[in-house]
Amino acid sequence: MATLADIGVAAAINILSAFAFLLAFAILRLQPINDRVYFPKWYLKGVRSSPTHSGAFVQKFVNLEWRSYLRFLGWMPAALKMPEPELIDHAGLDSAVYLRIYLIGLKIFVPIAILAFAVLVPVNWTNSTLENLKVVYSDIDKLSISNIPKGSQRFWAHLVMAYVFSFWTCYVLLKEYGIIASMRLHFLASEKRRPDQFTVLVRNVPPDPDESISELVEHFFLVNHRDHYLTHQVVYNANKLAKLVEEKKNMQNWLDYYQLKYDRNPSKRPTRKTGFLGLCGKKVDAIEFYTSEIERLSKEEATEREKVKKNPKSVMPVAFVSFRTRWGAAVCAQTQQTRNPTLWLTKWAPEPRDVYWKNLPIPFVSLTVRRLIIAVAFFFLTFFFMIPIAFVQSLANIEGIEKAVPFLKHIIEVHIIKSFIQGFLPGIALKIFLIFLPTILMLMSKFEGFISLSALERRSASKYYLFLLVNVFLGSIIAGTAFEQLDTFIHQSATEIPKTIGVSIPMKATFFITYIMVDGWAGIAGEILRLKPLIIYHLKNFFLVKTEKDREEAMDPGSVDFGSSEPQIQLYFLLGLVYAVVTPFLLPFIIIFFGLAYVVFRHQIINVYNQEYESGAAFWPDVHGRIITALIISQLLLLGLLSTKHASQSTPLLIALPILTIWFHRFCKNRYEPAFVIYPLQEAMMKDTVEQAREPNLDLKAYLLNAYIHPVFKDGEDDDNFSIGEEQEYDNTLVPTKRQSRRNTPAHSKCDGSSSPPQL
Amino acid sequence: MATLADIGVAAAINILSAFAFLLAFAILRLQPINDRVYFPKWYLKGVRSSPTHSGAFVQKFVNLEWRSYLRFLGWMPAALKMPEPELIDHAGLDSAVYLRIYLIGLKIFVPIAILAFAVLVPVNWTNSTLENLKVVYSDIDKLSISNIPKGSQRFWAHLVMAYVFSFWTCYVLLKEYGIIASMRLHFLASEKRRPDQFTVLVRNVPPDPDESISELVEHFFLVNHRDHYLTHQVVYNANKLAKLVEEKKNMQNWLDYYQLKYDRNPSKRPTRKTGFLGLCGKKVDAIEFYTSEIERLSKEEATEREKVKKNPKSVMPVAFVSFRTRWGAAVCAQTQQTRNPTLWLTKWAPEPRDVYWKNLPIPFVSLTVRRLIIAVAFFFLTFFFMIPIAFVQSLANIEGIEKAVPFLKHIIEVHIIKSFIQGFLPGIALKIFLIFLPTILMLMSKFEGFISLSALERRSASKYYLFLLVNVFLGSIIAGTAFEQLDTFIHQSATEIPKTIGVSIPMKATFFITYIMVDGWAGIAGEILRLKPLIIYHLKNFFLVKTEKDREEAMDPGSVDFGSSEPQIQLYFLLGLVYAVVTPFLLPFIIIFFGLAYVVFRHQIINVYNQEYESGAAFWPDVHGRIITALIISQLLLLGLLSTKHASQSTPLLIALPILTIWFHRFCKNRYEPAFVIYPLQEAMMKDTVEQAREPNLDLKAYLLNAYIHPVFKDGEDDDNFSIGEEQEYDNTLVPTKRQSRRNTPAHSKCDGSSSPPQL
Repeated sequence: MATLADIGVAAAINILSAFAFLLAFAILRLQPINDRVYFPKWYLKGVRSSPTHSGAFVQKFVNLEWRSYLRFLGWMPAALKMPEPELIDHAGLDSAVYLRIYLIGLKIFVPIAILAFAVLVPVNWTNSTLENLKVVYSDIDKLSISNIPKGSQRFWAHLVMAYVFSFWTCYVLLKEYGIIASMRLHFLASEKRRPDQFTVLVRNVPPDPDESISELVEHFFLVNHRDHYLTHQVVYNANKLAKLVEEKKNMQNWLDYYQLKYDRNPSKRPTRKTGFLGLCGKKVDAIEFYTSEIERLSKEEATEREKVKKNPKSVMPVAFVSFRTRWGAAVCAQTQQTRNPTLWLTKWAPEPRDVYWKNLPIPFVSLTVRRLIIAVAFFFLTFFFMIPIAFVQSLANIEGIEKAVPFLKHIIEVHIIKSFIQGFLPGIALKIFLIFLPTILMLMSKFEGFISLSALERRSASKYYLFLLVNVFLGSIIAGTAFEQLDTFIHQSATEIPKTIGVSIPMKATFFITYIMVDGWAGIAGEILRLKPLIIYHLKNFFLVKTEKDREEAMDPGSVDFGSSEPQIQLYFLLGLVYAVVTPFLLPFIIIFFGLAYVVFRHQIINVYNQEYESGAAFWPDVHGRIITALIISQLLLLGLLSTKHASQSTPLLIALPILTIWFHRFCKNRYEPAFVIYPLQEAMMKDTVEQAREPNLDLKAYLLNAYIHPVFKDGEDDDNFSIGEEQEYDNTLVPTKRQSRRNTPAHSKCDGSSSPPQL
Repeated sequence: MATLADIGVAAAINILSAFAFLLAFAILRLQPINDRVYFPKWYLKGVRSSPTHSGAFVQKFVNLEWRSYLRFLGWMPAALKMPEPELIDHAGLDSAVYLRIYLIGLKIFVPIAILAFAVLVPVNWTNSTLENLKVVYSDIDKLSISNIPKGSQRFWAHLVMAYVFSFWTCYVLLKEYGIIASMRLHFLASEKRRPDQFTVLVRNVPPDPDESISELVEHFFLVNHRDHYLTHQVVYNANKLAKLVEEKKNMQNWLDYYQLKYDRNPSKRPTRKTGFLGLCGKKVDAIEFYTSEIERLSKEEATEREKVKKNPKSVMPVAFVSFRTRWGAAVCAQTQQTRNPTLWLTKWAPEPRDVYWKNLPIPFVSLTVRRLIIAVAFFFLTFFFMIPIAFVQSLANIEGIEKAVPFLKHIIEVHIIKSFIQGFLPGIALKIFLIFLPTILMLMSKFEGFISLSALERRSASKYYLFLLVNVFLGSIIAGTAFEQLDTFIHQSATEIPKTIGVSIPMKATFFITYIMVDGWAGIAGEILRLKPLIIYHLKNFFLVKTEKDREEAMDPGSVDFGSSEPQIQLYFLLGLVYAVVTPFLLPFIIIFFGLAYVVFRHQIINVYNQEYESGAAFWPDVHGRIITALIISQLLLLGLLSTKHASQSTPLLIALPILTIWFHRFCKNRYEPAFVIYPLQEAMMKDTVEQAREPNLDLKAYLLNAYIHPVFKDGEDDDNFSIGEEQEYDNTLVPTKRQSRRNTPAHSKCDGSSSPPQL
């Protein structure tokens, strides 16, 4: 069992590594050559077009000003300086609200930790149960609930604290839900005109033998929304075309690479092999090869483009229908159109950037089946994935390693190495497993057929959370292979399960402390270093970049990856709430995580990330729900734990807690969730009225004409009858209001100068 | 343990008593004096105003024609003769669909019974496990699954049958859901103009310091539904006034009674005592007493009426808002109005008859708390009610009685009496308990604050079903006091519970057979006799009736009591599905129940019942859901039972069954449930368009003016400024289309003559 000293060593290691990451970041970010890696957001916003420092040639690549190195943590206050409204304007509501998740962590756990250390630590410490039992124990256990004798009256303290902590958590959640709901509504209300405010996505248009889909849609809405229907945009199945375009772009990259190589070294024509990945097959001249490939793809693309446009079968039974007013769109999105509730399904269109075009052609009928398949697949993934984790965890135990590799015994027995292994290994093994998971889960979500990126991310996040809950949390508490556990639970009664888990909880505190340090502290510090984008940028810069535009494209600002990072935060909420009463010693580690992560992500969001879409914090109900879940789990586990402690007077009083929490959840759901799903008519009418008064002659139809067109047709250089490019024009002539605050996509980057970069 | 002979005796008794009821009914209903008890529906429809037989004075009271007695079961084919569309026209969709529940019972169980007797009975019978075990067993057990040895391959037959039965049930349910959804939509589409098609109920109108509620509502909808808003009707808190009117009516009845008494016997002035219920206190002249009471109440009523009208505080933050078009109302009912989802709540207004006025003044905020209170209260009701039932059931066991009352031993031991007690007592004891329950549950639902009678009945039905499930079904299978059971379940694992219950199931078959006979057969036969309304009618007729109008009012046609009778049917579905595989011998008893009940209720619906409201079969999703619940329970219990039989090869295959059933339920919910909740825009637009074409000059505002006015103001004789009585006029002048098919309320009774009474 790990002692306080072990933890200390692990903490030292992790703090040092985190510090090393931060130091490396501080140095690297000051180099002008890395400027586009660490401040891409400002480039995309068009505020910055070259590193701020200018001077000699060397200074273009290396920062020689020694004073700037002294203030190497100066970015931290700078990151905190930007006020929230400006942050929303700068990076969008999604990012600003995402940061609030970390803030909530601090709001919940700082008071809880203070109270726990003031009340529970003395209550636990002043016992001598563990000493009397003469069992092996660590100092951490002396601080935990394990040190209280069975049947003691002191459990009243834990009971009262459980109530206080739950109420505090609920209070913070309630306040926060209210704030974020009003932020969202304010954000939506203060937004400038956007195509999705007027547009509804219609799915499962029934086939008609006499009319084309486009005619059918037009007629249907002309009849049933006669005063409100404006125009519509059918959806083409352009997946194959998009693939060709993608392939062509890839070929173009290779061509550029070889061209550049040849330019630098004109003596030798670059060659490549034609086989698999260029590793085998006939050797050919690379430049010729790629030029001919691109030619072939261009032809294919043109044919396919023609085919998509001409063939009525490439029109999907899906359409984006736009209305004259926001009111009309809000009505259509919230109502059922026909007798058969599976036909003419209407819902808000996601904003154009947010549409996941690939999934639009999926036939609606197959969606239920797809979800069933993924549900089963996810079940198996969750429960079979546990086998390797349990295996690694069994290795991570010192005695196990000594037995398995006896010749390493005398190395392992060295004190520092032992502490290192104990403190580091289990956490890092788990972490490696988890790196590849989000991608798999995202693929699963895509298969389920969601049609917006934001929905995909939310769905992946739910899956990932479940996975972490079963595998990391439960899997670490009750070691054992996958089905062993499942089997145990099935054959135990409903009251036995919390007992089994609850009893093991105090024993696992040290493991989770090391996990928090490795995953949380060092992980977050690693995040700010952006090692992968740094390397890739320099590689691209060296091999591909010819023009300034190429350099722009080589930047990979990335974005907050909600699908994988939010569930990880949720794991810390779970750990914090579960251990708050049991082993309060764990709380400071969690608080440090939330604080560090808040600063780091605030910096990243201001300077680096560029969100792909803006959902207006639509993910908040999920975040809220998962914190509530964590709270209920913690209450049940405490109930299980206490029921083994013979505290029969106090334990039954805990039963009310989960019931009240569920009731609280339902209350919040009724009160606040609609704000994240529905667009109220009053708001719509207000915006319509204001707009009508301000711009009575607005040509909305022209504005909406090409808003929802597949990006393949938008990017196309060929001139086709989809009349692309006009949007920008209309946008400028007809919409003189400033739309800058929403322009944080690469496409619209150069025209925004409202906010300035942080002062370094 | 009851033998086949015991069952036979019990069956004979029950058949005889059912037969006696039917015979009594056949005789009573032919007497002209009872005509208004057995054919009130025809009187209310205005088709019949006096008994069909006319002749001598005696024949006015007694039917002397001996031939009519010969065809004493003639009502049965007559009841079946009316085709369904005519039945819908005659009694409304609710009643017609209610009858289909019995038909579904037949559709599900007749093929299942045939298959079970063809396959499972031979499979079970040809074993000799029970004989070999040398335990006491009955012939019924030989027909059941108990007779199969452990680990036998014959369990494959039961497994396959479980799948076949489940699929058949789901198939029937799916077909039926589709049929009923289209019946409902057709019914709604073919309906004549009704106020509720244009009207939305708005709740929780926020208080405004500057405007009255009425102004506020008008302004809000004029702004947010400007093209569609027509008019609105505020709701007054007239509960006190309604109480006064009710009290006055009661006093009037007593006055009439004493007046009649005095008229018949003028020599003696009737007197009564002034104290509690007229039992104690000073003796006064009854006629004078009631006359003065009525005078006092009239005055109070007038004051109250004035107060309600004048005082702005008696206007509730609730309003019925009417729109120009059905489309506008459909839009408003389906959308959220403001940012705060708990303000300006809109939903379809129930039809005027269906409104439960008493609950409209309940403040919206208290609803959540009220529901929480009732949930807790219902939990306790369900689990404490079991104590008396278990007590009675322990008495109903012969040995128990012999022990308790030893001197009765030699009487009990007489064979017939023993069979009688065993066959009859447990069922009837349970039944008596259950008679008072629906009233309590209805009170609980009313306390929860639902605002339409149909919602109240549906809610009561859900509660009653849960109660029956826990107390009758589980309570009878695992005898034991309330908390004993709950305690056992909490401390058992999720897989143990179905085992515990499943094992006891085959043993309880005989008990449930007697229950079906007593509750089902005799109960249904008793239903047709209408003993209570018969007695009350004749009492009223003798004591109160002076004019023909009084006689009309003395009729109590009653209605299908959905809240208590539907859950009872559901209990038979549950029993049938649970025992279909285990003890198929029970199925014929259930089939007889469904057949008999179908005929009886069809007769009652045609000739007797007068529905208070018409919800358009809105209860069907509940009915469907409960049959699915029963199916899943039966599958889980079979799983539990088989897992104790060492049939390890076949049992795991059963796990897929509940999963598929749940999936089927979700499919049905998505596909059909919206038809019962939402009014699709296409339908609304279609009706609007047709109406506009037919009656371009319709004055809808006048039509809707008084549609949603509290019945107290409608019935009032005083002329007040609520302008009552004009509706009828507008109705006649502006709406020349026939609205007769909806006119099955007493108020509109005399004008319908489309369908004729059945030929006797």
